[in-house]
Amino acid sequence: MTKIAVLGYGTVGSGVVEVLTQNAKLINNKAKEEIEVKYVLDLRDFPGDPIQEKIVHDFDVILKDPEVRVVVEVMGGLHPAYEFTKAALEEGKSVCTSNKELVAEHGPELISIAHANNVNYLFEASCGGGIPIIRPLNSSLTADDVDEITGILNGTTNYILTEMTQKGLKYEDVLKDAQEKGYAERNPEADVEGHDACRKLAILSSLAYARTADYKGIYTEGITKITPEDIEYAKALDMQIKLLATSRKVVVDGVKHCYALVAPFLISQNTPLYSVNGVYNAILVHGNMLGYAMFYGAGAGSLPTASAVVSDVVDEVRHLGRTLVFNWNPAMLDLASIEDDKRRFFVRIKESQLDKARELFGEIGTISVGSLPDEVGFITDEISEKDFNANVEKLGGVISRIRIKEDAV
Amino acid sequence: MTKIAVLGYGTVGSGVVEVLTQNAKLINNKAKEEIEVKYVLDLRDFPGDPIQEKIVHDFDVILKDPEVRVVVEVMGGLHPAYEFTKAALEEGKSVCTSNKELVAEHGPELISIAHANNVNYLFEASCGGGIPIIRPLNSSLTADDVDEITGILNGTTNYILTEMTQKGLKYEDVLKDAQEKGYAERNPEADVEGHDACRKLAILSSLAYARTADYKGIYTEGITKITPEDIEYAKALDMQIKLLATSRKVVVDGVKHCYALVAPFLISQNTPLYSVNGVYNAILVHGNMLGYAMFYGAGAGSLPTASAVVSDVVDEVRHLGRTLVFNWNPAMLDLASIEDDKRRFFVRIKESQLDKARELFGEIGTISVGSLPDEVGFITDEISEKDFNANVEKLGGVISRIRIKEDAV
Repeated sequence: MTKIAVLGYGTVGSGVVEVLTQNAKLINNKAKEEIEVKYVLDLRDFPGDPIQEKIVHDFDVILKDPEVRVVVEVMGGLHPAYEFTKAALEEGKSVCTSNKELVAEHGPELISIAHANNVNYLFEASCGGGIPIIRPLNSSLTADDVDEITGILNGTTNYILTEMTQKGLKYEDVLKDAQEKGYAERNPEADVEGHDACRKLAILSSLAYARTADYKGIYTEGITKITPEDIEYAKALDMQIKLLATSRKVVVDGVKHCYALVAPFLISQNTPLYSVNGVYNAILVHGNMLGYAMFYGAGAGSLPTASAVVSDVVDEVRHLGRTLVFNWNPAMLDLASIEDDKRRFFVRIKESQLDKARELFGEIGTISVGSLPDEVGFITDEISEKDFNANVEKLGGVISRIRIKEDAV
Repeated sequence: MTKIAVLGYGTVGSGVVEVLTQNAKLINNKAKEEIEVKYVLDLRDFPGDPIQEKIVHDFDVILKDPEVRVVVEVMGGLHPAYEFTKAALEEGKSVCTSNKELVAEHGPELISIAHANNVNYLFEASCGGGIPIIRPLNSSLTADDVDEITGILNGTTNYILTEMTQKGLKYEDVLKDAQEKGYAERNPEADVEGHDACRKLAILSSLAYARTADYKGIYTEGITKITPEDIEYAKALDMQIKLLATSRKVVVDGVKHCYALVAPFLISQNTPLYSVNGVYNAILVHGNMLGYAMFYGAGAGSLPTASAVVSDVVDEVRHLGRTLVFNWNPAMLDLASIEDDKRRFFVRIKESQLDKARELFGEIGTISVGSLPDEVGFITDEISEKDFNANVEKLGGVISRIRIKEDAV
């Protein structure tokens, strides 16, 4: 029998207890050990809920109980999650988490504390909710030099863009609806401005390139400026607008760099990301031998996320007293300025600007949509972000511009 | 330094040597050990190829060399692959393979021999080429009761159907083209009749449901009867025709059964399998907590397949002297007759048969395509295979019928 403690009885924490209860028999079989939740830490009480008898308000009860071998940190936020995690690891307890803020900020430190204490720090649920991605990156793609990660990593923004696309609605209206349905937070900034996706990209890039990516250095742009008119153009182009979190490893003058950014992109039907809709997420990984592989599933939600957390619990119970190999080097990844990154862009301008646009961007073709007679859209050739921005400034009064992600496959 | 031997220097075997050579540094880092190919077993010689100095023609040289700790079996076929694998495992060498025939036929026996000898038998490359699926099923989806597996598991047939769809070509013409390009074998039966997908489905189902699925008991139908006219109807329905290998666990009268079959299906845009085209494969897995997850990538090809094989080599080198948990129970899975399995069907009939069809199937709507004025298509309500077949017999002279896979997500 292995006893565990769950920190936080919110959306994910209650899901963890439910998964462990409903699937107890098969989970115990796979862990080769009976797993029992001994404590649940929460500030609140839950009178009438069977969990109440396990509720404690003081973390020290958990920390000082040698019976607790695994701690599930699903509180979210940096503090006190960081202090609790560190203390648990130093006490020789394995920890698993869904907390992307904490992993993005302190991942390598916590892994190294874990290994120094012969325990494990796992975070399968931190980047893709229920999607198995951390374990595959860490123990399946071991024969490949991974050089690109491109993901739809945030369910809220993908839901909003899908609804805008399928129903022709405005950003603000869909956001309000999503908030009412619980798909978006009251304060949606972390999601809609791309910060959540940015942290997940930092974690995935760190594992893929075996260097620590600092999320604060990743260029991040949200979806708040996307309009139904942009989406009309996307349809006319047979493309979709998706918030992508993307990084790739490049060698410039013999030196390894990484371009990383989070931004809305136009993507075509030829990439498998095209049909990732609603609250689903997906992560496309490119390896030099494997080519492209994609991992798809529910990027959020109580039970899917809890399923990933519990898979970490099983792994930690299977490996009590043994550390799992983890490919995260604390040395920093060199994040290059995206100024020099090259791509094509879609641009909307007033029809009167077309001559000037052709002077700046060359012989561009144009695309029009019926409901917008006074303007045109065009797609540039491949151009650096820097040169593109300079041209846009010269052109003045551009209605909107959206990056294009070339076909993955 | 860990020395390994490769059995077979064909498409996959030469890929394995190439992956190990090109990515040597990072693979050795991940294995925490230098890996060296000591022998390559092949009947042929390869004069001028640097591999020639490692070529041996006698398996006993490998078997009797205690330095060889890992054997990579990429010969294909049942014999002598079975005898060689068994002997290597009994000699205390770990074995990994891409050989789906052998795993489908002798998987549980070989795993148990491996464990009895404190070594491992791994087969990541056997079901999805380069797609990481065996390891995720075995060590990521450990918190879930997996109750469905649905995959596009054969690259040749998916390429043929994609070409027929995108170019309006006939089966025979695309097959010929695929054979010329090397995407289809000279004798394509194992692929086009569904036998290859059937073996892969048996392996995946065995791991997912923790019981051994006998591939010989799985109903299997290939793609040879699909016509360009069927595909015209699919387009009119906004659907695609795909060769699916699908199994699901059901409880009938308190007893667990599994329905499994391989057949062409119509699928709608709402499933992520819809946009899996060309030689790509994908596997959709449903868990009771996770919901749907999908794994996508190159289902075949020398380097992608070799990438998966080498990921097994890395795992085996990391775990020398320790067995990896494997969730494959030798007890047999109860494969129920699909006669009782229920679904909707698409049917094409002559227009003159419509009244009779309505007598048999109820108030069906119809669909027509312009180029086929003398016939109509219709979709049945949900009906068992048995009742459907009885109705089709009564109706007589049905032009074609294709199963429908309801939206996964």
